[in-house]
Amino acid sequence: MKKILLSLAALFSLTMHAEIKTKTVDYKHGDVSLQGYLAYDDSVKGARPAVLLIPEWWGLTDNLKNKAREVATMGYTAFAVDMYGNGKITTDAKEAAQLAGQFYGKPLMAERAKAGLDALLASGLADSKKIAVIGFCFGGATAQVLAYSGAPVVGVVSFHGTPIPAPAGTHITAKFLLQQGAIDPFIKPEEVSAFEDAANKAGLDWQFIFYSGTVHSFTNPEADSYHLPGASYNASSHHRSWALMGTFFKEVLK
Amino acid sequence: MKKILLSLAALFSLTMHAEIKTKTVDYKHGDVSLQGYLAYDDSVKGARPAVLLIPEWWGLTDNLKNKAREVATMGYTAFAVDMYGNGKITTDAKEAAQLAGQFYGKPLMAERAKAGLDALLASGLADSKKIAVIGFCFGGATAQVLAYSGAPVVGVVSFHGTPIPAPAGTHITAKFLLQQGAIDPFIKPEEVSAFEDAANKAGLDWQFIFYSGTVHSFTNPEADSYHLPGASYNASSHHRSWALMGTFFKEVLK
Repeated sequence: MKKILLSLAALFSLTMHAEIKTKTVDYKHGDVSLQGYLAYDDSVKGARPAVLLIPEWWGLTDNLKNKAREVATMGYTAFAVDMYGNGKITTDAKEAAQLAGQFYGKPLMAERAKAGLDALLASGLADSKKIAVIGFCFGGATAQVLAYSGAPVVGVVSFHGTPIPAPAGTHITAKFLLQQGAIDPFIKPEEVSAFEDAANKAGLDWQFIFYSGTVHSFTNPEADSYHLPGASYNASSHHRSWALMGTFFKEVLK
Repeated sequence: MKKILLSLAALFSLTMHAEIKTKTVDYKHGDVSLQGYLAYDDSVKGARPAVLLIPEWWGLTDNLKNKAREVATMGYTAFAVDMYGNGKITTDAKEAAQLAGQFYGKPLMAERAKAGLDALLASGLADSKKIAVIGFCFGGATAQVLAYSGAPVVGVVSFHGTPIPAPAGTHITAKFLLQQGAIDPFIKPEEVSAFEDAANKAGLDWQFIFYSGTVHSFTNPEADSYHLPGASYNASSHHRSWALMGTFFKEVLK
């Protein structure tokens, strides 16, 4: 009976979990003004496990804001970062490549993401020992690099992100989950192998899953509107990868 | 309020889900006498989604019976098949290799498993349109072959099973989930590639996940007792793969 009463309490708490609050958060990285997006369940008070979201190279679009709200409905504080400044977004692949190109292979990639992590912590709504970072495409690569930099994250989920090999001498305990379309033309098998080899050398805990019939950007319902060859939404792989992320969160953010 | 009452009903139903019944089932394949193991929740009546379990090359051991009971607690009728006859099991790798060796590459592999599927259907406890097959090592290979043979299964989960390429001309709709240790010495990268190529040609819906630091037999808590180099239990990968199977069942057996 006690078990049933406890479950009842959980049920009522669940029923109250409807109110997701969102707000734009202005923050800085050096001289650069950034505009992140915070989403959280207002019926829960104070710090809780949290998730940092890093966008595709298009910038912090409505698609990522939707995902932040979905993460918030799971009970986590969600913070979607701005990598480019002033909430800059683009629908032009050339411009996106230039914007994202500033970061690859440079310390700036982790540092800019870290500014977002600090903004999340400053919200007072994140348990600093229970933070995961997820990212999509460019953001998936950034999420890995942020973890390698020693930032205090316990889990990394990369969706169709380039697998980034752990730098020599990496000593981190964050767990990695990489999710990829099996026929993603943007990611070469050698990149997968290089990730795995380096991760094994670094003793990382990693999982890598491949979804058949799936190309790049499979999590983005707007992907096809960009008319980028090799990038397309895939509802099945989107839902499977989202569910697997949820299971992963239950493990690393518990 | 209606929602809460419905949830309450679900809760009470959950509380009643404690009674897992098991029994040994004698069945035949031609002249061969087989002894399967049936497990089901006795508080549920009649046909329901069901799962066929196919053992490692050791035969239908207590490990697989435990897994059948776990599947039954998830609400599915579970039937663990006997591939060798008279419930034969062994702890000797040479004998196991001989026993399993009778099946690889021969029609007998699918036919013997199909006899188990028929026994499951004969129990009256399985919804014939909602059956998944899972298998471990030799059983994972057998599960794939059973599906390729056109047996009426909607999902296949292979745990550390050799990936078996779909034969040319395969036309099936069963969805595949393959789960493998990333450093399993029994499975070659070429076997993974050959599976993927054939599966793509056949238009299969497949997922393939790799777990770091994990070798063969990672789901078997008794694996280390066999002293087989390259085979070892891995609790983390076991639990992750089991959870992913559960998510997969929710998709294919709903």
